Amino acid sequence: MKKCNIYGLTAIAFGLGMSAMVNSASAKTLDEVMKERGLTQKDVLAAAKTYIPTGGRDEFIALSSGGQSGQVFVYGIPSMRILKYIAVFTPEPWQGYGFDDESKAVLKKGSDINDTTITYGDTHHPAFSETKGEYDGEYAFINDKANPRIAVIDMKDFETKQIVKNPIMSSEHGGPFVSPNTDYIIQAAQYPAPLDRKHYPLSQFNEKFRGAVTYWKFDRKKGRIDEAASFSLELPPYSQDLSDFGKGPSDGWSLTNSFCTERYVGGIMKGRPPFEAGCSQKDTDFVHMINWKKAAEVAKAGKTTKINGHNVIMMDTAIKEGILFLIPEPKSPHGVDISPDGKFFIVAGKLDTHASVYSFAKVFDLIKKKDFAGKDAYGIPILDLKKSLHGQLSVGLGPLHTQYDSKKCIVYTSIYVDSQVTKWDYCNLKVLDKIHIHYNIGHLVTMEGDSVTPKGKYLVALNKLTIDRFNPVGPLHPQNHQLIDISGDKMQLLYDMAVPLGEPHYVVAISADKLKPKVRYKLGTNSRTDKRSEFRTRPGREKIVRKDGLVHVYGTVIRSHITPEIIEVEEGETVSLHLTNVERAEDETHGFAIYGHNVNLSIEPGKTASATFKVPNSGVFPYYCTEFCSALHLEMQGIMMVRPKGTKLENAALKEGTKYTKTDYDKQIKNNVATQGVINSVVKFITERNFKDFPTVVGLVTDATDQLNFAAESKKKSENFAAKGDWQNATLWAQQWFQYQVKTADMGLRAKTYLEQNGAKKVK
Amino acid sequence: MKKCNIYGLTAIAFGLGMSAMVNSASAKTLDEVMKERGLTQKDVLAAAKTYIPTGGRDEFIALSSGGQSGQVFVYGIPSMRILKYIAVFTPEPWQGYGFDDESKAVLKKGSDINDTTITYGDTHHPAFSETKGEYDGEYAFINDKANPRIAVIDMKDFETKQIVKNPIMSSEHGGPFVSPNTDYIIQAAQYPAPLDRKHYPLSQFNEKFRGAVTYWKFDRKKGRIDEAASFSLELPPYSQDLSDFGKGPSDGWSLTNSFCTERYVGGIMKGRPPFEAGCSQKDTDFVHMINWKKAAEVAKAGKTTKINGHNVIMMDTAIKEGILFLIPEPKSPHGVDISPDGKFFIVAGKLDTHASVYSFAKVFDLIKKKDFAGKDAYGIPILDLKKSLHGQLSVGLGPLHTQYDSKKCIVYTSIYVDSQVTKWDYCNLKVLDKIHIHYNIGHLVTMEGDSVTPKGKYLVALNKLTIDRFNPVGPLHPQNHQLIDISGDKMQLLYDMAVPLGEPHYVVAISADKLKPKVRYKLGTNSRTDKRSEFRTRPGREKIVRKDGLVHVYGTVIRSHITPEIIEVEEGETVSLHLTNVERAEDETHGFAIYGHNVNLSIEPGKTASATFKVPNSGVFPYYCTEFCSALHLEMQGIMMVRPKGTKLENAALKEGTKYTKTDYDKQIKNNVATQGVINSVVKFITERNFKDFPTVVGLVTDATDQLNFAAESKKKSENFAAKGDWQNATLWAQQWFQYQVKTADMGLRAKTYLEQNGAKKVK
Repeated sequence: MKKCNIYGLTAIAFGLGMSAMVNSASAKTLDEVMKERGLTQKDVLAAAKTYIPTGGRDEFIALSSGGQSGQVFVYGIPSMRILKYIAVFTPEPWQGYGFDDESKAVLKKGSDINDTTITYGDTHHPAFSETKGEYDGEYAFINDKANPRIAVIDMKDFETKQIVKNPIMSSEHGGPFVSPNTDYIIQAAQYPAPLDRKHYPLSQFNEKFRGAVTYWKFDRKKGRIDEAASFSLELPPYSQDLSDFGKGPSDGWSLTNSFCTERYVGGIMKGRPPFEAGCSQKDTDFVHMINWKKAAEVAKAGKTTKINGHNVIMMDTAIKEGILFLIPEPKSPHGVDISPDGKFFIVAGKLDTHASVYSFAKVFDLIKKKDFAGKDAYGIPILDLKKSLHGQLSVGLGPLHTQYDSKKCIVYTSIYVDSQVTKWDYCNLKVLDKIHIHYNIGHLVTMEGDSVTPKGKYLVALNKLTIDRFNPVGPLHPQNHQLIDISGDKMQLLYDMAVPLGEPHYVVAISADKLKPKVRYKLGTNSRTDKRSEFRTRPGREKIVRKDGLVHVYGTVIRSHITPEIIEVEEGETVSLHLTNVERAEDETHGFAIYGHNVNLSIEPGKTASATFKVPNSGVFPYYCTEFCSALHLEMQGIMMVRPKGTKLENAALKEGTKYTKTDYDKQIKNNVATQGVINSVVKFITERNFKDFPTVVGLVTDATDQLNFAAESKKKSENFAAKGDWQNATLWAQQWFQYQVKTADMGLRAKTYLEQNGAKKVK
Repeated sequence: MKKCNIYGLTAIAFGLGMSAMVNSASAKTLDEVMKERGLTQKDVLAAAKTYIPTGGRDEFIALSSGGQSGQVFVYGIPSMRILKYIAVFTPEPWQGYGFDDESKAVLKKGSDINDTTITYGDTHHPAFSETKGEYDGEYAFINDKANPRIAVIDMKDFETKQIVKNPIMSSEHGGPFVSPNTDYIIQAAQYPAPLDRKHYPLSQFNEKFRGAVTYWKFDRKKGRIDEAASFSLELPPYSQDLSDFGKGPSDGWSLTNSFCTERYVGGIMKGRPPFEAGCSQKDTDFVHMINWKKAAEVAKAGKTTKINGHNVIMMDTAIKEGILFLIPEPKSPHGVDISPDGKFFIVAGKLDTHASVYSFAKVFDLIKKKDFAGKDAYGIPILDLKKSLHGQLSVGLGPLHTQYDSKKCIVYTSIYVDSQVTKWDYCNLKVLDKIHIHYNIGHLVTMEGDSVTPKGKYLVALNKLTIDRFNPVGPLHPQNHQLIDISGDKMQLLYDMAVPLGEPHYVVAISADKLKPKVRYKLGTNSRTDKRSEFRTRPGREKIVRKDGLVHVYGTVIRSHITPEIIEVEEGETVSLHLTNVERAEDETHGFAIYGHNVNLSIEPGKTASATFKVPNSGVFPYYCTEFCSALHLEMQGIMMVRPKGTKLENAALKEGTKYTKTDYDKQIKNNVATQGVINSVVKFITERNFKDFPTVVGLVTDATDQLNFAAESKKKSENFAAKGDWQNATLWAQQWFQYQVKTADMGLRAKTYLEQNGAKKVK
């Protein structure tokens, strides 16, 4: 066997000799690749418009509903690379979501419904927080259609911080939408049901079933929804749908459209035609137009009825106070989308070929003049459709949603049956362009397209269940988000992106530079409350304490060990484990899993995560770090020893599997001294360059310095044992000293490579 | 208001007039795009090598472990688009996995461990089934490190079919690996623990703690693991690690390497050096070399000890029977990778700079001659390292895993500390090329690289927690799979792919043409057993039956209604809902969610899915289809009416929300007749073309014909009611007739567009 040269001088040779090899050119030309792969010039152009070289950044960040996965996901535009799934309504182990005590508390508050624990969500419409109608990149919100809820996600760490349950709805769809300063968040009901959640027979549908819209108050300082300050409006038993907040001249108003204003109740097995027939019979449904600023005052003044402890403005109050109006709209619409200047809104009835542009000026004028066309069955004033319209335009078969361009008057409407996107001018009512998309388009999104200043450039078409765009993966197909270039006069299809999990319903996209996520937490943070955890620990202060019937384990994790490494408990005890990640390096997330107890944590640098669990049986339960964190990751392990009930802790000494002598010690020391030589040469390389000009390198050097300090501590221990002639401990601590040297070298070599690749200069 | 022209003749105009618009060229040239986006020629070349135009297919399909997400995911190479997350160990609502009764049964069998329900997994090594050492694309397998399990995934529908729990291990890592004909699947233990799962104090570590390797018998006909025919080998309390099966000359043998053969037990809080030090002290660890064919015979002959009901060949038997040998290997290795011809295997100790190439010929010769260097503490013969080696080569700092190229003698080794991939010649022991990857590489994969015929072309480097390659998304970073072109002499980096969920540990990649997934199930299939469901139903046979204390609901789903639409039960009853998707269209998956009962199903065409749930409270609970399935998706709804306990079913008639007259009926009929005109013109267009040459169109036409037949049924009902002067029902059934026309038109227009875009020809 050759000598195992452990990080010897050859390291330096490799480190320095590589650049020439790496930069070697590929043998094939672009023409050859195009020919081989059957690409057209148009394809190459599209490829060049979407490709991002290693280390590059996307221009926009899309936040997409994860549909029935109950999650939200994040992708870059134009690369269409999915960057993260954020756990929201469904427990997700990678993030420890629904596994650590901290996130369980968030979920529990939002998941106990009807004496049942809900473990999924049907997410629909993500929304970014806004300031003066502009996306500000601070928070995001997402709804659950199945079990009406709204979740708050903090864009500083992309974590779910709060889930609120709607107190009166049993179904919803049209939310969340935020007011221009994120004072309120709309959630609109979908299928009517009694607001008091009692049982009334279907014969009382018209009297007892109701729709509703909830205005959730958002407390920007706390970054949480204030449930007590939120209120709802009782609405007729129509199926309310999407909503939007006014802005500019229409600020203070919100719109919520609807379908099935026929108030039809199906019953196929009773011989009745299905819902789909009865809910599509009338030519028009209604946009609900609500003066929410006035409604907030009315709610504040106490003119509400408490339903399930929640403040509800009843219909008669809303009518009396002049808060609520109806405007007819072509039947069964999807979107109601207000223009960036707040002067118009566009609705398209999906069973019509037209998009209808409504003028707020006309609508306000009608309301001011009390020029109503009639009332609905519940007494709500109805405006005249013709008098409210700016105009209508035939845009295609099955128009659904509309998004705005940065260019004035330009909009894009998704066309379901024709499988197209239509670009049109809503001021002058003129179709400008159409592009085929691949089947079953629902929503579409332009960059910041529902804010006061849309950014144009790109459009994403959200197509469903794409049967033949990708390699087949069984009967359940991925979705297809198609990226379209809208910078020119004609739309150009750039990219087909498969969505591998869930059926995304809607996406919002923000300029990437508006997001400023943090890279680590302040040491000992409970990331769900954003406060210091009462269970945080520092290295050297780890302890196991029995208190109030719990075995509290205050531990730490760091490359490459978990402290404590041995946890001894008795069968039947309940353990409350608290682990703090004491790393300063930003990519040093550690995980924690233990056999047989459903304990699984993700602990990012600075985070404290807890798991409280009962120990049902005696036995031996290994635990380990689940996140590949360093070369010695596999050795980051421990054992929970569970004694049978009533037995005593054993005091017998461990029998060493391998014994070490002075020869072993000397060999290890020799190796460590050689390794220190390598480290010194790397340190020399770095400090002789302008490394302080590179923040990434400064981070690596900080981390390397930490590791070197740890190495010094182990060196000291080793020397102390050597002085006493305890070669077993002297050798093992010398090995630990070496392990810290390896981590130092790892960081040091990364820093050196970075400097080489990024043109660092020699300094004195 | 303009007349709502519902799918009138303008449809045809749009349908025909679009192609000119769509094909318009973009304004920008490639040079302009390169300049604007800062792309080099090398970047454009890489973009051209990875970009797949709309509808194109990837050449290889990667199956990746989903790490701590507990799932497996699928992506295409070279596009690096993630196509699907397959739910395995963690409940996942989009797929209904862990929500429907059928998948719950799979999960339950695999998740009850230590009187605890495990709801996550830490997946590590996916493996494809093999025939004669070649990937055959039939099945895939994946392990859970945290709670030792193996799952079977059927590549026909990409669904998890079985999870087996390891009966003796409390930790594992090295599995699954399959034998050349998938007779057996290896699962190797990781952290030692007593095999009988009893508690023994740590002072008895050497005597009572054990490692092991399990050989799971795979029944290819059933597509399931045969637990009773599986067996294990007891191994010393080393930390066993990765494994591989021999092939060709080494067929019949398997290898399992190890670390911590020091048998060190840590205990930081007791003043002991951590595991990482004690487990890295010796210069070498051991490869376990096992004659598994002989072991299978020994097990069959009953020379085993039953532990927890499972057949285990104890160490002394294994030694006596000549089944088990140890070969030293540089300490703390990751991979043990056998060459395609079965003549060599490569191990790299991660704390060494060398890769070691072992010769099976030499090893077999030593075994034959009983030329042993010694025995370990448990009496297992140890071969001499030097005598077993073909040779060693210094490949870089922290070498981990090795994968094989299609070119003879060429391999690629991942280099952790240097953050590189080294290409080298293992026959002639020569470094050929190195490429920098972006940090923390663990595994790497070449196309079919661990089969007998690697396909070369591409390599994927699996890098962990990539801090600066993508837009930041908070303290928990995505992983980075880097695609490298290995077709030329020099490796070329092509693409950085973000992994948004879980930390993938290993990937296997198969030629895409080997996978033949189905697009729909035979009507009424339980997809988890692959058998016809006893709960399947056909349209018109839906029923609600109370039996054995359950309310069985036998229902169907189809565009755009759920039958039954009303389910009436009493508080406290238990409902067992069975829904069959009766669609023939392949993209017509329907979902099902109901408020407040944690019921959530995904029902692909042909599938029968069930949900059994208790109804805890009275009230009104809307349900709906969760998968956007047609224009009338939102109207695909129903209501579960839960009466208070002891109350009677109400017989009062429904009060219609809207009344219809003969005028409404006549208007609807006029509309339907006009729509039929559109349909006829589309039918004419299609049938005048060679549509039968296009399978996609044949599928669409089949579906459209189904819809048109449904339309005829509704038409008849409408006419019957009209004859009786019942204008309410006549109008609503006429509307339903129209709804089927819309679905027909939807399919017809898709077919027409497809024919136009794919150069169909006119025929007589």
